Amino acid sequence: MQATRKPFPECPFEKRFPSQLVRDDTFFMSLAYNQAIDAWRRGEVPIGAVIERGGEVIALAHNTVETAHDPTAHAEVLAITQAAAALGDWRLEGCTLYVTKEPCPMCSGAVLMSRLARVCYAVRDAKMGCLGGATDLNAIATLNHHLEISAGEILEAECRTLLQTFFKLKRESSAAGS
Amino acid sequence: MQATRKPFPECPFEKRFPSQLVRDDTFFMSLAYNQAIDAWRRGEVPIGAVIERGGEVIALAHNTVETAHDPTAHAEVLAITQAAAALGDWRLEGCTLYVTKEPCPMCSGAVLMSRLARVCYAVRDAKMGCLGGATDLNAIATLNHHLEISAGEILEAECRTLLQTFFKLKRESSAAGS
Repeated sequence: MQATRKPFPECPFEKRFPSQLVRDDTFFMSLAYNQAIDAWRRGEVPIGAVIERGGEVIALAHNTVETAHDPTAHAEVLAITQAAAALGDWRLEGCTLYVTKEPCPMCSGAVLMSRLARVCYAVRDAKMGCLGGATDLNAIATLNHHLEISAGEILEAECRTLLQTFFKLKRESSAAGS
Repeated sequence: MQATRKPFPECPFEKRFPSQLVRDDTFFMSLAYNQAIDAWRRGEVPIGAVIERGGEVIALAHNTVETAHDPTAHAEVLAITQAAAALGDWRLEGCTLYVTKEPCPMCSGAVLMSRLARVCYAVRDAKMGCLGGATDLNAIATLNHHLEISAGEILEAECRTLLQTFFKLKRESSAAGS
């Protein structure tokens, strides 16, 4: 729908086609991975997120920071807004968020403030991640909500390869263009 | 514009009318305070935010979590999105955010991710604040951006009284209604 910001190396990865009959963590993370592929195809950093409740997908989003010119347009924030609109309630009780990379400082806070039950992320981020990487906001005892966190287990290699390849090709593209 | 969620004690405070000729921290925090008053009048927790660049206001927002049913609709996030739209760039370089209360985990992350130059907040929040209160995300060395922070100096008493009175009246109203 949105034009890409500038010419960009084509995404060499394909989407995943998980069975609709097995609604496990790998199923939902596969849909988040597919969102990340869509992000790349639009010139965005390939990060995707999905929110599930009772076995159903209630939100699907990917990073749109560059095309929307909005630093808050991360996959997780967009998915949380979508999910709250679907439920008609800002409290996302009983919901799980799947995201291809450990949430940044903003998104780690957003998952706590939205009262999600659980967050499942693929790739750990020791520099920017705030659910166990650079720090763990979920460990602050005074916050009024805490999450169950599953980290680095589901499609970790696939999501890591996608991100690493994106930044490698971007660097090579920048070097060739300058 | 939006209907309040439910009957609510009327706001007993008036807006401030600072001189347009003195564009100092108190001027911009006064505008953030006025946004907080607007929030209360719409049945929202009275927190307001303003973003300034070069002496001009480029964003004004207040909390709309309840009316928008959106846990990400905090004053700071809405103001950041507005400011980025005004500049046509997600990087809010050279901008200062004024907010009546120390940012929550999400908003503390958002001010870092949006590359604001400075954040000035009125009331410290030892439980939920993440720019010096419960923790300080700005102190994480591995993040790719850091902020100048001014805390608890400008209109602190006014913003604190506004928030404390709001919650006091809300508790009394709930007790009387049950």
